[in-house]
Amino acid sequence: MIEMGLDKALEDIRNGRPILVYDFDDRERESDMTVASQFVTPEIIRKMRKEAGGLICTTTPYKVAETLGLPFMSDVYWDDCKKYPLLAMMAPTDIPYDRTKSSFGITINHRKTYTGITDNDRAMTVKAYADTIFQDKPAEDIRKDLAYSFRAPGHVHLLNTSEKILENRHGHTELCTALMYMAGVKPSATICEMMGDDGGSMSKEDVRKYADANGITMVTGDDVLKAWAEWKAEHGPEQ
Amino acid sequence: MIEMGLDKALEDIRNGRPILVYDFDDRERESDMTVASQFVTPEIIRKMRKEAGGLICTTTPYKVAETLGLPFMSDVYWDDCKKYPLLAMMAPTDIPYDRTKSSFGITINHRKTYTGITDNDRAMTVKAYADTIFQDKPAEDIRKDLAYSFRAPGHVHLLNTSEKILENRHGHTELCTALMYMAGVKPSATICEMMGDDGGSMSKEDVRKYADANGITMVTGDDVLKAWAEWKAEHGPEQ
Repeated sequence: MIEMGLDKALEDIRNGRPILVYDFDDRERESDMTVASQFVTPEIIRKMRKEAGGLICTTTPYKVAETLGLPFMSDVYWDDCKKYPLLAMMAPTDIPYDRTKSSFGITINHRKTYTGITDNDRAMTVKAYADTIFQDKPAEDIRKDLAYSFRAPGHVHLLNTSEKILENRHGHTELCTALMYMAGVKPSATICEMMGDDGGSMSKEDVRKYADANGITMVTGDDVLKAWAEWKAEHGPEQ
Repeated sequence: MIEMGLDKALEDIRNGRPILVYDFDDRERESDMTVASQFVTPEIIRKMRKEAGGLICTTTPYKVAETLGLPFMSDVYWDDCKKYPLLAMMAPTDIPYDRTKSSFGITINHRKTYTGITDNDRAMTVKAYADTIFQDKPAEDIRKDLAYSFRAPGHVHLLNTSEKILENRHGHTELCTALMYMAGVKPSATICEMMGDDGGSMSKEDVRKYADANGITMVTGDDVLKAWAEWKAEHGPEQ
């Protein structure tokens, strides 16, 4: 078994290839299949649903989400709890591996999708989302483009990173978004958890076997944290 | 190819077996794998993600959702659109096959789940949800049970039926919930769209082949509408 390095992972990301990211033995102990959102195709969505099996989600860096007004789902629920008291009563204050709130943002479909769930539809939604939010123009114009192209709710989950990537929260949302920054692609990752056949997540050992058998690069949260510290020292803050 | 009838489908539902429900040639043209939520197991979640491939969602009859205060996601987004104008701008007013709003409700995890996404976790969430919402006690007590057992957002999508099941909206949410009523089980269905390998939904013909090869009962929206009209004539309104 050859431990493949972070440089190979970044090269794969630039080439639109999925990689595998295991988080930490003391966190979710889960691996996510990850690809740059700008390169998502129907084949990649199919691979994610068949070979990973979790939820297919697309990340947005905190500052982009904040500038555009793309909320965390927890905040939206909370804001509506006078009308729906259950939303306050069901607040996610007890996530076992995470002292911060969940990363879930809103769910979206591209307006040109039909049902929104097919491989073609989800790929269209994800790719167009990444192409829309990172345009070099005023936030107000990007908001108009988002409204023109997407409806919410939909079948693709957005995830917002925590405010400072990989400082307060070490989730797959942050790990995979940091990888996109380091790869130099549009910093949105599309991610999907690897499931096992035993009712749980696929074990770290089984993910490694899958990675080796399929020629897919696998990195760990520790690899990403180390590289991210170096990258930030050289490039400054990510945004 | 033997066209299997609705009675067989209802018997399968009572036995906790998944069935397949195709909607209509002039609507989504999509088939959902469906099972009674009260009988969902990790094996069924695994079958859904591997053999169906869409989003795994759990339905709630409108009147139950209204009594308990379980909102439509569209309404929650709309209520927060002063704070997040994008949520109004992205309103789902243009769904191609549907003049009503989407069925999406909130997303939940059982509080005893770990990540929420594994087959064990999703099965626990779905089964406990069905066991919680249909208890024969005051709504206020059920709300407390929901808050005690579930957090939101999470990894299982809830879907609310339209107000009068199968009158205004003929979606899988309504078709599958009506099947649960007719089968005499707790009227929550867990459903997942069947995907094809060509980027689209699995065709009606391929779903039929899959059903025959795997001994799974398949019914159509027309079958359900006919049986539902008869059932309502005999039993009165569903709630």
